[in-house]
Amino acid sequence: MKINQQYYRSIWLHPQDKKVVQIIDQRSLPHAFVIRDVKTVAEGVYAIKEMLVRGAPLIGAMAAYSMYLATLEAHQQQVADVAAFLQQAATNLLASRPTAVNLHWAVQRQQAAIGLAKSIDEKMTVALQTAQDICEEDVEICRMIGVHGLPLLTAISKQKKGDTVNILTHCNAGWIATVDWGTATSPIYQAHEKGIKVHVWVDETRPRNQGARLTAWELAEHGVPHTVIVDNAGGHLMQHGLVDICIVGTDRTTYTGDVANKIGTYLKALAAKDNGVPFYVALPSTTIDWQMRDGLKEIPIEQRRASEVTHIQGLHEGEIKQVQLTPTNSAAANFAFDVTPARLVTGLITERGICAASEQGIASLFPKTTLA
Amino acid sequence: MKINQQYYRSIWLHPQDKKVVQIIDQRSLPHAFVIRDVKTVAEGVYAIKEMLVRGAPLIGAMAAYSMYLATLEAHQQQVADVAAFLQQAATNLLASRPTAVNLHWAVQRQQAAIGLAKSIDEKMTVALQTAQDICEEDVEICRMIGVHGLPLLTAISKQKKGDTVNILTHCNAGWIATVDWGTATSPIYQAHEKGIKVHVWVDETRPRNQGARLTAWELAEHGVPHTVIVDNAGGHLMQHGLVDICIVGTDRTTYTGDVANKIGTYLKALAAKDNGVPFYVALPSTTIDWQMRDGLKEIPIEQRRASEVTHIQGLHEGEIKQVQLTPTNSAAANFAFDVTPARLVTGLITERGICAASEQGIASLFPKTTLA
Repeated sequence: MKINQQYYRSIWLHPQDKKVVQIIDQRSLPHAFVIRDVKTVAEGVYAIKEMLVRGAPLIGAMAAYSMYLATLEAHQQQVADVAAFLQQAATNLLASRPTAVNLHWAVQRQQAAIGLAKSIDEKMTVALQTAQDICEEDVEICRMIGVHGLPLLTAISKQKKGDTVNILTHCNAGWIATVDWGTATSPIYQAHEKGIKVHVWVDETRPRNQGARLTAWELAEHGVPHTVIVDNAGGHLMQHGLVDICIVGTDRTTYTGDVANKIGTYLKALAAKDNGVPFYVALPSTTIDWQMRDGLKEIPIEQRRASEVTHIQGLHEGEIKQVQLTPTNSAAANFAFDVTPARLVTGLITERGICAASEQGIASLFPKTTLA
Repeated sequence: MKINQQYYRSIWLHPQDKKVVQIIDQRSLPHAFVIRDVKTVAEGVYAIKEMLVRGAPLIGAMAAYSMYLATLEAHQQQVADVAAFLQQAATNLLASRPTAVNLHWAVQRQQAAIGLAKSIDEKMTVALQTAQDICEEDVEICRMIGVHGLPLLTAISKQKKGDTVNILTHCNAGWIATVDWGTATSPIYQAHEKGIKVHVWVDETRPRNQGARLTAWELAEHGVPHTVIVDNAGGHLMQHGLVDICIVGTDRTTYTGDVANKIGTYLKALAAKDNGVPFYVALPSTTIDWQMRDGLKEIPIEQRRASEVTHIQGLHEGEIKQVQLTPTNSAAANFAFDVTPARLVTGLITERGICAASEQGIASLFPKTTLA
């Protein structure tokens, strides 16, 4: 997608040095656009853990590239037990964020691919190829999510006789959360490119404000009309007919259709249900967890630092500063995700089409025989 | 209630100069405790409009004292047409905030009382007395809300065999929103004083963070255990049995039980309903609007400055600073309240007892014949 009129992806191999992966450091957005080099698996773990990169698909891509960097390190350091070294790299990556299923999927795919390769040279080659494949596949998957989601927006536009289609989204399931296009944003970008009038209500998404910082930023850079709102506002907007459709992403979806996504998603789904607003979840099938039946009981919910709640970062006189929001002697809790039960989800927009958020619905698009 | 071991109210007449009203400037809380003098009706309007004071009952008290200050000004300036001067003061006060019904009620009560007084001296005396009466009545009303709400918490405590009662509240309906005790907090403070173990989940309440700044501050100062959470978290907590009861305040409640309160209240009410968590609204009967039947259609919802969404204030190296959260070229919308339909409200806790959030329920405690 475009940043200041130029095309970018969210992760890429350094054009002059294929031992270096480059990413956009999302921590300083929207106030500063900083590109960082990632050269080791430790730096990859750090990038995921400290959320220089975030969003399930991009975490997967970062993990895949990190496994490639691990093979380079094993080679450079001439480690004796390459298998053990790579296993440790995988373990460290898997421990970096607990909720995103893509992380597991990407690391396991790399381990399988690298495991088949005999020499360290071969391992490096296959690891790079796998990382690049994962990225290319992600771009294509996200593009296809847009292709399948677009008719939802076209239909609303027609129904409103060309009037603006108002879409509410939560957190950032934009292109900066994937390699390109985004998940929830892919239908929006494709509608915008087709000249359909769209307007996005962007939930700011406390505590880390991925909506206010990232979704707003990427929509602004790409020229899509949008308005930032606090997370509290969506219910009111839906009560007053100001939202035509909700589209969000997901970090993990059970094979029964329960959706783990950024904390607060559940509240928006409740409001959508209460007001008859369609609530869609856009997802690559890689975020489907084929082992989990009951999202509420089974999906682990990450608890992060209290300081993400008690403090916030923003721009003050040209500099990025952190300010304290709460009294010094007040505790804070920070649950990062919640689970929206399948019953509140109108449909899942996947790379293979739209299906009901149910075991049957998901199986209709992804029969077991077609899964890798 | 206590601040740093000392008893305070939120508004009082200057102990040495009865021509001056004193308030706690809530804008700098919790980082600085600043007491301000209010000497003119213009300063009273400013205090309400700029939210030095906020919360429906305290706005009413501030407006009542401001009408008293208006009589002092009329006297000092020897205005020719006292009635017109006071009418202008009332008009300015009524225009300062659109949603709180107490503002209207307090101004009208003052106008009626002042109108009956003949001389300007008499007007000053009656205006001061009325302002003080309104404050004393508010304290007693809030105390009684606590008396009636307390058994709800006692019952949960018994049911949990003395384990901590977890209460979720939104915004600040604490003593700093009233003259003393608070509305939603009154049962909590009274339970705490009786030795019942309570713990409050404090919604931070974006955009103005009245929860994180004010509710957390007053609970901390008074020694009540609490944890600040982002507004997105309450649904997750309720899904996991971590909330025993929700208690919120209201800025205006229709005589049919629809509740206007800080934006986001509706979302918590939906989550409470979905998880079988009781959802109570604590209110003085002065916040009941006897003219309005349909809260969603009729209650005017204030839209405030976008800068309250795009910027936030906090403490940075000992100084209160504002930081920008959003991209410079992103718009923001700022709806200040939403309406929770009566069907989502378990009950109303009033100074006369608890009733159903319905026309019949409200009429059972407040029959028309008993209303002033």
